[in-house]
Amino acid sequence: MRPMTFVLAPDSFKESMSAKEVCMAMEKGLRKVYPAASYIHVPMADGGEGTVQSLVDASGGTIYYKEVTGPLGQKVTAMYGILGDGKTAVIEMASASGIHYVTKETRNPLITTTYGTGELIVECLNKGIDNLIIGLGGSSTNDGGTGMAEALGAKFLDNFGHALPRGGGSLDRLASIDISRLDPRLKQVNLVAACDVENPLCGENGASYVFGPQKGASLDMAKQLDASLAHYAEIVKQQLHKDVRDVPGAGAAGGLGAGLIVFTGAVLKKGIDIVIEYTGLKEKLADADIVLTGEGGIDFQTKFGKTPYGVAIAAKEAGKKVVAIAGYIGDGTDTLHEVGIDAIFGIAPGASTIEKLLADGPCNVERTCENIARLLKLTEA
Amino acid sequence: MRPMTFVLAPDSFKESMSAKEVCMAMEKGLRKVYPAASYIHVPMADGGEGTVQSLVDASGGTIYYKEVTGPLGQKVTAMYGILGDGKTAVIEMASASGIHYVTKETRNPLITTTYGTGELIVECLNKGIDNLIIGLGGSSTNDGGTGMAEALGAKFLDNFGHALPRGGGSLDRLASIDISRLDPRLKQVNLVAACDVENPLCGENGASYVFGPQKGASLDMAKQLDASLAHYAEIVKQQLHKDVRDVPGAGAAGGLGAGLIVFTGAVLKKGIDIVIEYTGLKEKLADADIVLTGEGGIDFQTKFGKTPYGVAIAAKEAGKKVVAIAGYIGDGTDTLHEVGIDAIFGIAPGASTIEKLLADGPCNVERTCENIARLLKLTEA
Repeated sequence: MRPMTFVLAPDSFKESMSAKEVCMAMEKGLRKVYPAASYIHVPMADGGEGTVQSLVDASGGTIYYKEVTGPLGQKVTAMYGILGDGKTAVIEMASASGIHYVTKETRNPLITTTYGTGELIVECLNKGIDNLIIGLGGSSTNDGGTGMAEALGAKFLDNFGHALPRGGGSLDRLASIDISRLDPRLKQVNLVAACDVENPLCGENGASYVFGPQKGASLDMAKQLDASLAHYAEIVKQQLHKDVRDVPGAGAAGGLGAGLIVFTGAVLKKGIDIVIEYTGLKEKLADADIVLTGEGGIDFQTKFGKTPYGVAIAAKEAGKKVVAIAGYIGDGTDTLHEVGIDAIFGIAPGASTIEKLLADGPCNVERTCENIARLLKLTEA
Repeated sequence: MRPMTFVLAPDSFKESMSAKEVCMAMEKGLRKVYPAASYIHVPMADGGEGTVQSLVDASGGTIYYKEVTGPLGQKVTAMYGILGDGKTAVIEMASASGIHYVTKETRNPLITTTYGTGELIVECLNKGIDNLIIGLGGSSTNDGGTGMAEALGAKFLDNFGHALPRGGGSLDRLASIDISRLDPRLKQVNLVAACDVENPLCGENGASYVFGPQKGASLDMAKQLDASLAHYAEIVKQQLHKDVRDVPGAGAAGGLGAGLIVFTGAVLKKGIDIVIEYTGLKEKLADADIVLTGEGGIDFQTKFGKTPYGVAIAAKEAGKKVVAIAGYIGDGTDTLHEVGIDAIFGIAPGASTIEKLLADGPCNVERTCENIARLLKLTEA
C-alpha cells in the first residue's frame, strides 16, 4: 500500500501556537501511528493576525522589522514579511496602525492615522517586490487611508493649500488632493488587500458607524467621522475620478480599503482566498489522503471565511477528506459538516483554565492527532 | 453492506451522568452518522460507586431503598438493586456504611460499624435471591465486617459473655464468636464481593494502617485497630477454623472482605470482572463492529481495573475495536493503547470549569461520538 499523505493546513492557535507550531505538533502525533507517511506543512491564516507569520513560514520567507509612525504619532516597531520567492511582501496594517497601540484612554479615531502602514508599504517597495499583500484587520484608525497615502507621497490640502493634520477628524476640511508625487513604483506592483467585511465607506453600514465605536468613537464622533469620510469620497470622486464610496469593503480598517483602491490600485479579496493562493494550498492538496486543519476556536463564525472553512472548501473541490481540531468548540459547528469539515475534535483534556490550555497547546494537539490517526488506522485495516 | 453494530459499554461519568445516560448520549451522536446501525447498551461499572445503578440498568432490574443502621448508629436510607433476572441482588457497602455518612468531625474508625451492610444483606435474602454481589468501596469502617455479621445473626462476646459494642475499637476484648444463629439462607446463596485491593487484614499493608487514616485514624489509633483486627483474626482462626488474616483483599473495606469470607462464604473478585459477568458483556460483544467505552476520567490508573480497561481486555479477546471517551484525560494514557484501547478522545469543548463540564456532559458526549462516527465513516467509504 502506498504510504499516506497528510496535508496539515491549520491556522495559528492564537496566544498558544503559530500555525507552523501547530503543523509540527500535528505531525508529531500522527507520525506515532503513520511513521512512513508524508507530511506536507501548509501553515495557514485568514488575512487577520498571524498572516505575515504563516505566509513567511509556509514559503520559507523572512520576517523583517521596521520602525514606523504609530497611530498616535509615536514610534512603533512593525513587522513585515518577504515570502520565499523574494518577490512578494506581506504586511498586516495592525502591525503599524493597530488598536493594540492605543489604550482605552488614548484611543481617538479623530486623530489616529494609517501613516505607519504607508511607511511599511514604502519599505516593501524598497525591497523591489512584485506583489504586496496587505491584511486589514485590527485597525485603530478612521482616516480613509489618507495617512497611508501621505506616506506614499499624496498630499491632502485645505482651502489655503495647507496640509491637513493627520486623522479622519480633519477630512471635513479637505479641499484638494495632490497625487503628483505619489510613489510611481505602486504602478509596477500587484497589490491585494485581505478584507473580510463588505462594509461601504460611509453611511449606517460604513466604517465610522460600524467600527468607530470599538475604536473609541462616541455617537457624535461617529457622525462627524462619517460626514468627513463622505466629504473625502466626494473630493476623490471629483478630483481623482474614482467612486469608491459604496464599494464593498471600502469601509474596512477605517476606510483604508477605500484608500488602497484609490491610491495604490489594490484589489480587495477574501483573506483566506489570498492565503490559499500564496501558500499554493490547492497544488499541495493534490496528493493528500487526509487534510488536517484547525484553529484556536471553531464555531458558527468559522464559516464566514475562517481558515478551517476555506481549507475545507478547497479540499472538497479536490475530493479530499478534512478533519479539524480546535482548542475551543463553540455552538453551531454542526453546520460546518455541511460545508465540508468531515469531523471536528476538541483538544482540551478536561476542565482547565484558558491559561493552562494555551500553555499545553502542543501536547494537546499531538495527543488529539495521534488518536485521530489511530481511529483512521482502525478502519483502514 | 451489513449495518454496523456498536456496543456501548461506558462507566458512569461521576457527578455528571449514569452509565445508562452515557450510553444514550453516545447513541444519539453515533446515530446521526449511522442511522441504521444497531446499538447495544451495556452500562458498566467497576464494583465502585455506580455499580448498583449500572447493573440494574444493564439488566432491566429495579432499585430498592431500605432504612438501615448507618456507620455511627444513625438511620440512613440505603439503596440496593435486584437485577432483571429477579434472582440476583447487588449492593454497595458504602450505601449503608460509607464514608460520606461521617463528617471530618465525626469520623472515628474505632466505632463505625458495617451493621447496616448486614441489614442490607438480610433484606436481599428476604427477596429470595440466588446471587448477591457486594461492592466494597467507599467504607467508613474498620470493624472486620463484625457489624455485618452481627446483623446476620453472629454474636461477638467478651470474657463475660456480653456482646461487644460495635466498631473495630472493641475487638481487642473479643473472647468468643457465636455463629449458631447465623442466617442459614447464606448457605444457599452465591455471594461475590467486588474487591480491587490486595491488602491483607493486618500488618503494615493491612486495613488499619493503609486505609485507617482516610477514615480518621491517627497513627496511635491505627496501631490499636491493627492489633484489634489481629486479635479478631486469631479468635476466628481458633474458633471458626478459618485463617483469613493474610488473604489478599481481606483488608478491603476495613476488613469487611475478611468478614464476608468468614461469615458468608463470599468469594472476592475484581469488580470489573464481576460486572462483565453479570452484564453478559462478552456475549454482547460477539456481534460488535466497534466498542465504545469511557469514564469521567481516564489516566494511568485506568489500567488498574477501571471499566475502560476491563472492556478493552474483553473486547480485544473478541478481536474487536475499542474507542474510549473521557471528561478528563490525564497523564499516562499512552500506555492504554498497549492494553487495547485503540483511540481515546476527550469530550471537553475548551477551557471550562468542572461544574460546566459536569452539566454539559450529555451534549459533549453526543458531539464527540458523532465526530468519532464521522471519522469512522470517512475511512470506511
